[in-house]
Amino acid sequence: MKPIEFYFDFSSPYAYLASEQIEALAAKYGRTVAFKPILLGAIFKVTGGAPLTETFPAKANYSKHDFERSARFAGVNFKYPSQFPIATVAAARAVLWLQSQGSAKAPLFVHKVFRAYFADDRNINDPAVLAEIADELGIDKAALAAGVQEPAVKDKLKALVDEAIARGVFGAPTIFVDGEMFWGNDRLPQIERWLAYGPF
Amino acid sequence: MKPIEFYFDFSSPYAYLASEQIEALAAKYGRTVAFKPILLGAIFKVTGGAPLTETFPAKANYSKHDFERSARFAGVNFKYPSQFPIATVAAARAVLWLQSQGSAKAPLFVHKVFRAYFADDRNINDPAVLAEIADELGIDKAALAAGVQEPAVKDKLKALVDEAIARGVFGAPTIFVDGEMFWGNDRLPQIERWLAYGPF
Repeated sequence: MKPIEFYFDFSSPYAYLASEQIEALAAKYGRTVAFKPILLGAIFKVTGGAPLTETFPAKANYSKHDFERSARFAGVNFKYPSQFPIATVAAARAVLWLQSQGSAKAPLFVHKVFRAYFADDRNINDPAVLAEIADELGIDKAALAAGVQEPAVKDKLKALVDEAIARGVFGAPTIFVDGEMFWGNDRLPQIERWLAYGPF
Repeated sequence: MKPIEFYFDFSSPYAYLASEQIEALAAKYGRTVAFKPILLGAIFKVTGGAPLTETFPAKANYSKHDFERSARFAGVNFKYPSQFPIATVAAARAVLWLQSQGSAKAPLFVHKVFRAYFADDRNINDPAVLAEIADELGIDKAALAAGVQEPAVKDKLKALVDEAIARGVFGAPTIFVDGEMFWGNDRLPQIERWLAYGPF
């Protein structure tokens, strides 16, 4: 069966919450997850849209509260980062470089980076922080630092952003199951129904 | 225990979906529902925001698909109305007039109006349609037609819009449980947890 495609930006709180749940959900129905990092800033420029905290005060205020309550609801550690949102291009490229190497540690790296930002308030756009995370996973940090600079990796990220836009993605997480698009952590119950019983 | 406060605009598909579920959910935990009609157009002018279908193409397209899929997920009849969104001021005032009369039929009227629009594609801003719906419920349609013109009813609707804005409402449905604000049909699972186990 086709992998579940998980488009995310490391700066999205709801993508973080979904990332903590999607693999268990996929495994329950014999599926795997393809993690696809994108850059929401680049997408917003094309599609329209803005980070929730930069929409308008009433929505921004509610969103901050909802991030934290939704994390508690999901049983996921969450601490509102001192800088939000942040650039995530280095972290996204690091994931793509690991994937290009066929590294089985790529999903673990995704989780560690998300948790570093949303649970431990670390600046995941800092190459030193990414190197530390790589090191903790036994990934060659010098090779990773070089890898994120490879033109093929940079091109892959641009291609993923274009691919996402072409498929109608305008926010994160956006999850495709058998080509069906679901936007948002709060669509996980609908995804589970799809996985269990098929299209509806 | 305090009633669950349900702020809605008859033009909101997700408010319709939630309206079909909220009373059963409330009853399960010994609560009642206070239906509070508001006008999203008036609120958007103050807070910012726009109907989902008038945001930008990628989000508007997805939203239309998600309305229909979310309705199937909830087991609720839904047919995308030929005119969307529409003005709902007359329907909102009709609800408030019924409530001002202490009518036990007010919640039934809410459901019939929502279904007329979102299941049967009827123009619920047409006084003749509202009169028909009233008639079907055994409500005096002439009294209703006069009632929606009462200054006290018009003032009540304005006051509810102001109350909603003051409480941070920026969309629909917005549901308050013990003062806690939840936005969106997709927050019903969080509301159920709150009702079952208290604040989290």
